[in-house]
Amino acid sequence: MAILERRDTGAVAHLTMNAPERLNALSDEMLAALQAEFDALRDDAGIRAVILSGAGKAFCAGHDLKQMTAGRQAEDGGKAYFKDLFDRCARMMMTIQSLPQPVIAQAHGIATAAGCQLVATCDMAVAAEGTRFGVNGVNIGLFCSTPMVALSRNIPRKQAFEMLTTGQFIEASRAADLGLVNRVVPAADLEAETRALADTVAGKLGAAVRIGKEAFYRQQLLPLDQAYAYTGEVMVENMLYRDTAEGIAAFIEKRDPDWRQ
Amino acid sequence: MAILERRDTGAVAHLTMNAPERLNALSDEMLAALQAEFDALRDDAGIRAVILSGAGKAFCAGHDLKQMTAGRQAEDGGKAYFKDLFDRCARMMMTIQSLPQPVIAQAHGIATAAGCQLVATCDMAVAAEGTRFGVNGVNIGLFCSTPMVALSRNIPRKQAFEMLTTGQFIEASRAADLGLVNRVVPAADLEAETRALADTVAGKLGAAVRIGKEAFYRQQLLPLDQAYAYTGEVMVENMLYRDTAEGIAAFIEKRDPDWRQ
Amino acid sequence: MAILERRDTGAVAHLTMNAPERLNALSDEMLAALQAEFDALRDDAGIRAVILSGAGKAFCAGHDLKQMTAGRQAEDGGKAYFKDLFDRCARMMMTIQSLPQPVIAQAHGIATAAGCQLVATCDMAVAAEGTRFGVNGVNIGLFCSTPMVALSRNIPRKQAFEMLTTGQFIEASRAADLGLVNRVVPAADLEAETRALADTVAGKLGAAVRIGKEAFYRQQLLPLDQAYAYTGEVMVENMLYRDTAEGIAAFIEKRDPDWRQ
Repeated sequence: MAILERRDTGAVAHLTMNAPERLNALSDEMLAALQAEFDALRDDAGIRAVILSGAGKAFCAGHDLKQMTAGRQAEDGGKAYFKDLFDRCARMMMTIQSLPQPVIAQAHGIATAAGCQLVATCDMAVAAEGTRFGVNGVNIGLFCSTPMVALSRNIPRKQAFEMLTTGQFIEASRAADLGLVNRVVPAADLEAETRALADTVAGKLGAAVRIGKEAFYRQQLLPLDQAYAYTGEVMVENMLYRDTAEGIAAFIEKRDPDWRQ
Repeated sequence: MAILERRDTGAVAHLTMNAPERLNALSDEMLAALQAEFDALRDDAGIRAVILSGAGKAFCAGHDLKQMTAGRQAEDGGKAYFKDLFDRCARMMMTIQSLPQPVIAQAHGIATAAGCQLVATCDMAVAAEGTRFGVNGVNIGLFCSTPMVALSRNIPRKQAFEMLTTGQFIEASRAADLGLVNRVVPAADLEAETRALADTVAGKLGAAVRIGKEAFYRQQLLPLDQAYAYTGEVMVENMLYRDTAEGIAAFIEKRDPDWRQ
Repeated sequence: MAILERRDTGAVAHLTMNAPERLNALSDEMLAALQAEFDALRDDAGIRAVILSGAGKAFCAGHDLKQMTAGRQAEDGGKAYFKDLFDRCARMMMTIQSLPQPVIAQAHGIATAAGCQLVATCDMAVAAEGTRFGVNGVNIGLFCSTPMVALSRNIPRKQAFEMLTTGQFIEASRAADLGLVNRVVPAADLEAETRALADTVAGKLGAAVRIGKEAFYRQQLLPLDQAYAYTGEVMVENMLYRDTAEGIAAFIEKRDPDWRQ
């Protein structure tokens, strides 16, 4: 079995991290597999939504501490290895955000440290009831500094600070209240509900979602006038798509659109 | 009847979008009327709060799709018209934010696409129970890229992304939980409750609210030290107002202030 | 009795503002005492968490209006004094954020204007049930422009705007929902619960919390790629701490870490 499995159904690609005995830790191998798969998805025009889940008891327990500890044997005490590791991890996270397709985390069990960062990084997240989220590196003396980049862009400031400095876990319902996940569903419904959300998104015009997702993250960093100047151009480009003209015409004529995508 | 009605009561101006048969769509005419009225309000020293509502079944259903479609007849397929349209729309939205007076959306029925953007753009919003909000352009192949500029500055990231890519509506109570509206009230009380909020704001010292509103949006874009340097100057200027000295003196002496505004 | 009392227990410093007859107003004397104590704490390696509370009926009622009014007697009407006052206040607030140790507000009674700013500025906050929060300067004609710098970095936009322009108070439970405080507890448990939170934080590796707190505020201002580049370096530095290596080893070996801190 591969460390990362991919199963496509219609326009949805479902990735499953498959190292359950390590709680799907982001080992060198797992990071490489995720990077390769997301890179492949970037140019896969047939896919319009991506689901990311984990096999076994947990979604993902963060970095592989045993592998990291082994890295200390190098002459520099692991410094070069750690630098490269966090670079690769950040690149994979940024790849998710820059992917044309929306990526949905399907979280269950636990999502801790870089595993919680994965959930925060995905565009959306559905969690099974009882899923526990934590940025608990502080408990072993390693502050979750990279995970907080994603976490602090999802939830309010004081609540992020508390999670980071106490190392305490929050339950799925609290995660939903804070904004870390979109929906909490019974464990038995997790796969179906995540799939339904992915199907909803995949049913939209892919070109519109693609241009919209890119604009979503870019405009948030801009002052208001620049954000409007930029998104105004995005709207014009979107209006000129053949399928958008058809979608609007269909809406006015109260019929289903005949999209060529 | 004018496409935009204005009725002043005391220091509150109440604007009503009045094209109910088009669900108060932001047509060229509606945008022009809103721009003109907000421009007039900017210099109206007698007005200290503004309410924006819609006549008929809906607050506002966004852009006028039939008018936009007609624009496609131009030689360039509508490109220049669309560019100008989104520019005018963005200018009107930014005018609301830069207006000296607080602007309160009084939302009912539906507020969709650029209509939802209007609610998000107003400084505050009161919604009738059952009001539905959506940035649902994606359903017809037109991602709500300009509306998301305002929306994503009101509600958390993942929840904004979900609304934008699923096109699904949220109810007023959910909108309040997410931060898109301030209060949800029974439909029968909507006008009175919005009016009460406007009266509360209009009862304050206009000069203080004016300088405060401008500072509110400006300081949020600044790093902490610059935000404090700037707002510190605002506080000094505010302290030196004659009416502020009177307000503070009245508070210390436990009497009502004699403001000259 | 000093205007600011400090009592250390273990690695936790507990500061108490002690001018109950003035509702612990941020007078020149109180600001100077807070600045001096925070400056001293910066280099106090034995302290790993700080609690800030207020003696008497209130946490803090903001600036000292009588002292400010007296400042108007100067030839310039108080302009230079006010400028200096807001500079000193902002410097004290920024010192809290730049302090190596997490600072927890222990709020009760009321926290208004610059007192509410203090709560918003602290890294975390615990509030007694019934505590009321307000940025109510607008009621006397002085918009809470400096307090809003901190407030608007804690709670959503429209809800901050409402508090600032209506001057209305919110209760502790609402403050928790909005993100202004982390926890609301019965008044009888306030001290113990705040202390428990401080003890939890103080039980972590101080060097990790220190580097993490600094990174927390810095990375939020950076674009994603820069935020990751910066925090990646922080993680590498953190990984190379002797005590972090020990913490990770202890976790793998399922034993308690032997930290030298």
